[in-house]
Amino acid sequence: MNVTLLAGGVGGARLAHGLDLALGPAPALTVVVNVGDDTELHGLSISPDVDTVLYTLAGLNDEERGWGLRGESYATLTALADLGEDTWFTLGDRDLATHIVRTAGLRRGEPLSAVTAHLARQLGVRPRVLPVTDDRLATLVDTPAGTLGFQEYFVGRRHADAVLGVRFDGAASARPAPGVLDALAADVVVVAPSNPFLSIEPLLAVPGVREAFTGGPGLRVAVSPIVGGRAIKGPAAQILESLGHDVSALGVARIYADLVDVMVIDERDAELAGPVADLGLRVHVTDTVMGGPPGRERLARELLALA
Amino acid sequence: MNVTLLAGGVGGARLAHGLDLALGPAPALTVVVNVGDDTELHGLSISPDVDTVLYTLAGLNDEERGWGLRGESYATLTALADLGEDTWFTLGDRDLATHIVRTAGLRRGEPLSAVTAHLARQLGVRPRVLPVTDDRLATLVDTPAGTLGFQEYFVGRRHADAVLGVRFDGAASARPAPGVLDALAADVVVVAPSNPFLSIEPLLAVPGVREAFTGGPGLRVAVSPIVGGRAIKGPAAQILESLGHDVSALGVARIYADLVDVMVIDERDAELAGPVADLGLRVHVTDTVMGGPPGRERLARELLALA
Repeated sequence: MNVTLLAGGVGGARLAHGLDLALGPAPALTVVVNVGDDTELHGLSISPDVDTVLYTLAGLNDEERGWGLRGESYATLTALADLGEDTWFTLGDRDLATHIVRTAGLRRGEPLSAVTAHLARQLGVRPRVLPVTDDRLATLVDTPAGTLGFQEYFVGRRHADAVLGVRFDGAASARPAPGVLDALAADVVVVAPSNPFLSIEPLLAVPGVREAFTGGPGLRVAVSPIVGGRAIKGPAAQILESLGHDVSALGVARIYADLVDVMVIDERDAELAGPVADLGLRVHVTDTVMGGPPGRERLARELLALA
Repeated sequence: MNVTLLAGGVGGARLAHGLDLALGPAPALTVVVNVGDDTELHGLSISPDVDTVLYTLAGLNDEERGWGLRGESYATLTALADLGEDTWFTLGDRDLATHIVRTAGLRRGEPLSAVTAHLARQLGVRPRVLPVTDDRLATLVDTPAGTLGFQEYFVGRRHADAVLGVRFDGAASARPAPGVLDALAADVVVVAPSNPFLSIEPLLAVPGVREAFTGGPGLRVAVSPIVGGRAIKGPAAQILESLGHDVSALGVARIYADLVDVMVIDERDAELAGPVADLGLRVHVTDTVMGGPPGRERLARELLALA
């Protein structure tokens, strides 16, 4: 069974890990990852969502903190601060090696997808990890304080600003990275419990991706990132609210209604199963809060059993 | 009194430090530094001699090892190795911050001299540190094993190959960095006890530098890097020999005879004072082995007293 996951950062990475554990050694999983969060700092190209997926699949991620590598040190960042650099974005010493290698590859003219494949190979990552595009695509967030670059909104201002709109600069001329459209023809395509606006929308904004996804032959399954009216992590709840959506799994289901066949909602939201089904969606109710590897694998097995 | 020092790596850095201590707070010292050793590793622009001078003047250098920063860690380098990078060239975590800032500045189109001035300011370095040129100038070493890039010869193969010749790729079209020619009109211009072929020649190879140096109004003083027939550090002795020179302060004096007014040789080579004087040079005999800061300052004061 071929499986493709559309993923943002932490939620996507955890479900990717679960699917990898559930699928086993056969190379059956492709993870298509958001690049709208990508940024450049100190002249280095940073792809936070791609790295979170890579590090989690390699078992190197910091589970407690939710981002970055376990057991990091910060000697280079301290030295950068001593040299007068603005170090509001935390970069660990080991993490920096990834950015250095990525930047060198991109400067040599290699596409991001090739650099990502190289990093995945070196880290011993089994699934195929594909940035959705090799072209520039930058998520911009409209707020009462003006339009902010994604990392300025997310890290710099700790996603405290109300979100009035989300745009994807460069999306119109971006092309899907090699393999992305083919991957959307998998037997099962899962939308990770990632932020619908900040993680999934930028994937679908790349011309051809939405069509390949909705027109694909496989079963399309989305996992709600909202559980009991709250996001497991990040600002999804606030953004749903400020954009006028229901802050619930039902609100998420309405956003995905025309895109997927099955909506997976948490058992804490069981009472929403009826309203979600009324949208014309098949509903699967389960414990969607993954936590560690066993919970990830369990959820992944349930998703695969839907097909 | 304005003083300019022509410098390579360690010997140049130590004498620069001594001159800075001797001259005190007035901004009277310019250090013109070799860039023929510059290289690119992992996509980062490395200027080893410039950094040795900066770190030494900032009091941050590793005195024992002779290069790099004191108290370094190597987390990023270890991670680079884990990512399959070739890490034959040791780069510490704090040192990497310098290379990251330099590379970012160069990528933004800033000249190396401007980036160096920024780094010097951030490190609290008082003297003006000028790379001899902002243009590309790469030292190439002809050996029985073929032509080697400088760092391949020096670090990669631990300067074990016989040197048949030294060339400076790009020198013909390199221009002196802003301020270099003016600095050569200082009251005293000192040639550091650096490698004549690998550190000083590449400075003089930049069109206009040799003429400005020899035609300058100030006193020109060279300090022999050879003491008792041996180099304090590095392959100067082997190179003198393989290129057919006397492996002695006299051999060095012959190389510099047409360039300088005063030759400073070590007291262990006192018997060479006569032969050096016979070359038409004024000779100053003293303890030239600087060691720590007091020895550097003492030698610097003696040099300044020559003028």
